[in-house]
Amino acid sequence: QSNVTVYGIIDTFVGVGKAGDAKFSGVANGVLNGPRIGFKGEEDLGNGLKAKFVLEQGFNSDDASPASSKEFHRQAWVGLEGGFGFIGLGRQYSPGYYAFRNDAVAAGALDPAAILTGGGLQVDAGSDARWDNSVNYQSKKFGGFSGQVIYSFGSTEADDKAKNPNRNTDDKVGLGLNYANGPLNVDYIYINAGDSTLGDDHKEHYLGAAYDFGGFKLVGSYQTASVDANDSDVKVYQIGGIVPVGMGNIHVAYGARNEDAQDSDSRSFTVAYTHNLSKRTIAYVGVNRTTNDDNVGLGALAKQDGKSSNALGLGIRHAF
Amino acid sequence: QSNVTVYGIIDTFVGVGKAGDAKFSGVANGVLNGPRIGFKGEEDLGNGLKAKFVLEQGFNSDDASPASSKEFHRQAWVGLEGGFGFIGLGRQYSPGYYAFRNDAVAAGALDPAAILTGGGLQVDAGSDARWDNSVNYQSKKFGGFSGQVIYSFGSTEADDKAKNPNRNTDDKVGLGLNYANGPLNVDYIYINAGDSTLGDDHKEHYLGAAYDFGGFKLVGSYQTASVDANDSDVKVYQIGGIVPVGMGNIHVAYGARNEDAQDSDSRSFTVAYTHNLSKRTIAYVGVNRTTNDDNVGLGALAKQDGKSSNALGLGIRHAF
Amino acid sequence: QSNVTVYGIIDTFVGVGKAGDAKFSGVANGVLNGPRIGFKGEEDLGNGLKAKFVLEQGFNSDDASPASSKEFHRQAWVGLEGGFGFIGLGRQYSPGYYAFRNDAVAAGALDPAAILTGGGLQVDAGSDARWDNSVNYQSKKFGGFSGQVIYSFGSTEADDKAKNPNRNTDDKVGLGLNYANGPLNVDYIYINAGDSTLGDDHKEHYLGAAYDFGGFKLVGSYQTASVDANDSDVKVYQIGGIVPVGMGNIHVAYGARNEDAQDSDSRSFTVAYTHNLSKRTIAYVGVNRTTNDDNVGLGALAKQDGKSSNALGLGIRHAF
Repeated sequence: QSNVTVYGIIDTFVGVGKAGDAKFSGVANGVLNGPRIGFKGEEDLGNGLKAKFVLEQGFNSDDASPASSKEFHRQAWVGLEGGFGFIGLGRQYSPGYYAFRNDAVAAGALDPAAILTGGGLQVDAGSDARWDNSVNYQSKKFGGFSGQVIYSFGSTEADDKAKNPNRNTDDKVGLGLNYANGPLNVDYIYINAGDSTLGDDHKEHYLGAAYDFGGFKLVGSYQTASVDANDSDVKVYQIGGIVPVGMGNIHVAYGARNEDAQDSDSRSFTVAYTHNLSKRTIAYVGVNRTTNDDNVGLGALAKQDGKSSNALGLGIRHAF
Repeated sequence: QSNVTVYGIIDTFVGVGKAGDAKFSGVANGVLNGPRIGFKGEEDLGNGLKAKFVLEQGFNSDDASPASSKEFHRQAWVGLEGGFGFIGLGRQYSPGYYAFRNDAVAAGALDPAAILTGGGLQVDAGSDARWDNSVNYQSKKFGGFSGQVIYSFGSTEADDKAKNPNRNTDDKVGLGLNYANGPLNVDYIYINAGDSTLGDDHKEHYLGAAYDFGGFKLVGSYQTASVDANDSDVKVYQIGGIVPVGMGNIHVAYGARNEDAQDSDSRSFTVAYTHNLSKRTIAYVGVNRTTNDDNVGLGALAKQDGKSSNALGLGIRHAF
Repeated sequence: QSNVTVYGIIDTFVGVGKAGDAKFSGVANGVLNGPRIGFKGEEDLGNGLKAKFVLEQGFNSDDASPASSKEFHRQAWVGLEGGFGFIGLGRQYSPGYYAFRNDAVAAGALDPAAILTGGGLQVDAGSDARWDNSVNYQSKKFGGFSGQVIYSFGSTEADDKAKNPNRNTDDKVGLGLNYANGPLNVDYIYINAGDSTLGDDHKEHYLGAAYDFGGFKLVGSYQTASVDANDSDVKVYQIGGIVPVGMGNIHVAYGARNEDAQDSDSRSFTVAYTHNLSKRTIAYVGVNRTTNDDNVGLGALAKQDGKSSNALGLGIRHAF
């Protein structure tokens, strides 16, 4: 048992939402973090080499349902870390997951970046940023710079074990470059997700940055997604800030999504306050307003095409 | 890991049963407790405030199948405890769960109370006493008295996040009042389960008590369930006793169920012996006989409408 | 928590495979061991008596999916151990599981024994060697000899709890005899699996042995399977060896499968090298070639009827 650490996060809130005729009042989850329970460990192999593993399941802490039919929806990998960096095998984060570093309100239910990347974008901390059957390389840090390259052999090979090895069909490739030095963080992310729900030959680029002025942290990002089909390109940008106040923080974020398709743009705005009851336990309250053009219905808690979605959540996040 | 306690119960038995043409011989589970594995913890936040959580899955220890499709079928909640009592969010016990306090043979496979509340009653320690998307308040104890109020926003909102907030459709509300002082325990429970499998506007009342005379514990309860439909009201009562003998206990329980509908009454009788191999491990043997009117087929292990159901189980319960 | 040990194994590899038109290139799992996570414990009850339990889930470490819809696919049992031996209840290993003791390349994806027992044989460490609703007796060791008897009441009784207690339909019975003394291990295994996917009244016999010469371990086995249908009997034999070299081992295994049915024979050959990075962590590389008659398509990673299947895997196994 000394080889395994059991850990996790529960994040549950009461919320109300309204978008046109759609209304929500109830209990939901995941404003600051997706609920999870995990098992992890590492072993020192000598000569600077380490074996590491993570098995991490996601679930909904409002109704106790699993995040998907997987045993470990969030992560399931084993790898070796050494002077060369880290190489891992299994279900792992694509670089798209790390977009949350340049985000003012984490990557959850009330986050403009998470809301505006809905409908198929994959550079976001959501489910699509976890890639099955992947080989993942993460470099060491050189003068603040580090990089990640990941290749996913797709999910179909897990079923028939005899898949067509055509990358554009279901394989995915991702590249992440990070610069983190003192108050500054910059991320460039590229993924090619093959044929996705968004369309064939799905590609995304992302550039995001965060700067901590001390007493105020400014964040922002710009990302694009394109597929083979005409009129389907998407652009999302967001900016935000975090201001420490007493035992908590005020978070403000604004973002916009523009599609090539007509009447399909959205804008989203969030203000939240997080109160640190301890390092592990945070109480929070947040509001989001997302406005939509006629052909799109993004938002939180309640959604309807062409309608503004308004949501308020009040909850608690506990890490263990 | 010091933040998490891993715990659980396995309860498996070999049994034989017969009801008319239906026969059972094999391995089953859950005479004394439903098998479970859980993760729990608490954090002291200072000023008398604590954060607490429980994530608890139920499963069948006979064939290793999960109790339902949920990740944590039994409980999944996070909450705060302080001078005000406890408030929690998630999948939590309704007051109906605690009916087992006034029960002579726990709330398992051979228990008259569990058998007779079959077919849709929810004031019982079974699955229906766990409510999703709930806000739960539990008071402190005042002179032996304590109370619980719980509101469940229903399971549909977890699917579409845009449910009709009509309480009678899928929301539930529950109220529990407990008096526990020295040898005496009394519980009053009320629930309104909305539209259930039993019928629309499903309501139940329960009154139960237990008194420990020292060397003999007497228990009993009376409960009613009603729905909108005529002729569907149900009344269940049970009485029982627990007598310590040597390293074990003899448990005796008798109960009856009366429905407004014709020829739908049942009676159930159980005698069991539990032998304490340790505080954590109990060997047991028990027999149940349930008799049924023509239109109902309650019982344990083997069931058939209008037939008596006889069952015998011999097993082991281990807590870890 | 001191009552529970959390443990497991992850075994993931990158591989390529080809059989006729079928090709595989990607990430897969389970060359040395099936990935698993488990919870186990034991309690001393005094007088030489112990309560023991294991709850162990299997999963695919390549894509994080569960091995089946069970909560604990591999094992879920509680039992008592004492001077009489061990008796357990639940989902437990049939004697067929222990065939891996006489196997040169464990019982995984590249193992001739595992490949050649594909298509329904159950004396093999795979899924079918785990029996639900079983009563299992394991004797103590007497002068090197020990025995196991297991009876499984089938999976249907778990559904309707009123099954027909006809052993040939879904009940199973197994017998295992083991002699382990110094360098020699011998296993005889018999199972009657009732009506299986292979056919009605499915019976198997197995005889296997291993001898450690010091610096070279020789293993081999011979097994037969028969069902009621004509022309469906199957015979499988395999021999192999393990040679320690430096910090690792070279494993060689060859096996053949002969069916009564025409043009349905296969032969399989594997060479593997395992490198011990530590006691818990092993890096490995292995190749398998399986040749098939016209009507059968066994193999690893890529399979096609009548074609040779060639596979190479390079991976890591980490136990925690």
